[in-house]
Amino acid sequence: MSFNMVVRNGVTAAGARFQELERRVNVSFSIQRTIQFAETDMAGVLHFSNYFRLMEEVEHAFWRSLGYSVYMAGKDPDISWPRVAVHCEYRLPVRFEDTVELRHSLTRIGTKSIEHEIELIRDGRRIAVGTMKTVCCAMTGQGFTAIEIPAILREKLEPHWVRTGPDTGRKP
Amino acid sequence: MSFNMVVRNGVTAAGARFQELERRVNVSFSIQRTIQFAETDMAGVLHFSNYFRLMEEVEHAFWRSLGYSVYMAGKDPDISWPRVAVHCEYRLPVRFEDTVELRHSLTRIGTKSIEHEIELIRDGRRIAVGTMKTVCCAMTGQGFTAIEIPAILREKLEPHWVRTGPDTGRKP
Amino acid sequence: MSFNMVVRNGVTAAGARFQELERRVNVSFSIQRTIQFAETDMAGVLHFSNYFRLMEEVEHAFWRSLGYSVYMAGKDPDISWPRVAVHCEYRLPVRFEDTVELRHSLTRIGTKSIEHEIELIRDGRRIAVGTMKTVCCAMTGQGFTAIEIPAILREKLEPHWVRTGPDTGRKP
Amino acid sequence: MSFNMVVRNGVTAAGARFQELERRVNVSFSIQRTIQFAETDMAGVLHFSNYFRLMEEVEHAFWRSLGYSVYMAGKDPDISWPRVAVHCEYRLPVRFEDTVELRHSLTRIGTKSIEHEIELIRDGRRIAVGTMKTVCCAMTGQGFTAIEIPAILREKLEPHWVRTGPDTGRKP
Repeated sequence: MSFNMVVRNGVTAAGARFQELERRVNVSFSIQRTIQFAETDMAGVLHFSNYFRLMEEVEHAFWRSLGYSVYMAGKDPDISWPRVAVHCEYRLPVRFEDTVELRHSLTRIGTKSIEHEIELIRDGRRIAVGTMKTVCCAMTGQGFTAIEIPAILREKLEPHWVRTGPDTGRKP
Repeated sequence: MSFNMVVRNGVTAAGARFQELERRVNVSFSIQRTIQFAETDMAGVLHFSNYFRLMEEVEHAFWRSLGYSVYMAGKDPDISWPRVAVHCEYRLPVRFEDTVELRHSLTRIGTKSIEHEIELIRDGRRIAVGTMKTVCCAMTGQGFTAIEIPAILREKLEPHWVRTGPDTGRKP
Repeated sequence: MSFNMVVRNGVTAAGARFQELERRVNVSFSIQRTIQFAETDMAGVLHFSNYFRLMEEVEHAFWRSLGYSVYMAGKDPDISWPRVAVHCEYRLPVRFEDTVELRHSLTRIGTKSIEHEIELIRDGRRIAVGTMKTVCCAMTGQGFTAIEIPAILREKLEPHWVRTGPDTGRKP
Repeated sequence: MSFNMVVRNGVTAAGARFQELERRVNVSFSIQRTIQFAETDMAGVLHFSNYFRLMEEVEHAFWRSLGYSVYMAGKDPDISWPRVAVHCEYRLPVRFEDTVELRHSLTRIGTKSIEHEIELIRDGRRIAVGTMKTVCCAMTGQGFTAIEIPAILREKLEPHWVRTGPDTGRKP
């Protein structure tokens, strides 16, 4: 927004910002979802626990967009992604038959875990934002064992990693 | 309630009725359950689908009262009881923090299946009544296969079979 | 299927049957729905109570297709359609990420109540079939009072009434 | 644990620590809860969103222990406590028919909001820990408006405030 743009590697800062935003738009993934009657509570709004179900739905749709199911069966053992930590902040209530956009970003790829951020948007306004840290696990009858993310999955995930910075609107 | 009691096999009809009621009381099984906020919907009442979750809870508590889990693991294969048909009739709404009695009766034992009837009672009034027909199944990774009820389970179930008649309040 | 077709109002019986089937196709309403992870249970399949949530979803989508919400607010009092009886028969299990067709038929219009029938179809096979009898009610803070179906709603519903006969596969 | 106890207001530090722990024990509130079949998912464990339902159940039981419902009707307007932020960390899976202790602590009382912390304990081991920040709101048909916590409620809450410190095991 300044007239004195700083040239960085032959690209203006404003241009870099624009490219960053472009990149974000490209790597984000979103679905539309209509709130159902059974998901409301006696306060007339989407029950707070159901936001996590919506967040999980777009997480799983994201995996499908990569050609995978979040529950990778037939791998001996099966691989899946249980969560170790989640959080959600609620800004505005959502009601029966509202349609919300669930906007997914992959905000971290670690050795064994990844972090998803999901925004709920209705009519251009942010309703809620949440995160889910999920761990790559071998699923056996006895329980879940954290494993390193297989290279083939990491390659699929990498291009979708939104490295968060000051322009992302995310809390640090 | 008549002074002219009919003697039947040396027992008055009123006495037989009393014995029948006694027997019913003995074989019926019930639990108390408080309705939770997340179980309500925007109409301010227990969502109709959640009645089935309550019905299932008392079904499983009934199994535990016999010394079993409804999901009998470690049997090679596991045995469980998926349902093939359920129904529910709703008489009165139930609200957040209402405590209801879930009264369970085993109303039929077949070769491979059994039928549960559950009444929801609040303050002495019948709120709802439902049935669930469940089938004894071998649970494999591929699916469920109906099997004959093992003799050991049948023996446990038999004493709880409420053979329904005109005094049970059940529809035929 | 007979060579001796009975002519009725200038139309053969076979032709009438065909027209009936056509009409059924026209009046039925359906949506596609993908099973979500949170809707499964430890047996690896859609939990039996969640079939009723799917049934309700297509019921509400049907109302929207008529230009209404099932919860008709702002009518002083609000009008809605609580259920008095539901049932479901389960034929085949459904799993995570299966997409099912929810096929809705309006099978009865009474003075104060209507009946919905819903079939769950996957890959051309009937997974389950259920019914829900719902009652037109004035919704007040105190509770629900059954009322006659308003003429304006009845007019909207009538063209969708599938009068069931021997070709419908429905139980009487 | 030191031999050189510091005397503080005539009380040894170890004694003060003991009193603090005693106080914590006294102000904490807990209920037992058995995991139900419908709450599990195809991974065989309690679905992650259902931890929040358990957390809410003990929150509401806590309100009842104070003589209130979380949904305070008949106040013109009604008062209730929607959440603005929640989080949960998952340590160990929980399964069908496990009984967990839900241990509630009131960890903050602000002007308009309070914070609940809930630990899930099974067999003496911490399964999960979560927090919920809830806001005192006037509930109207149009929505929720944050209000100052009424003095009468604040008085009831104050004795239960667990001011967290280094001995609480809570993350800062």
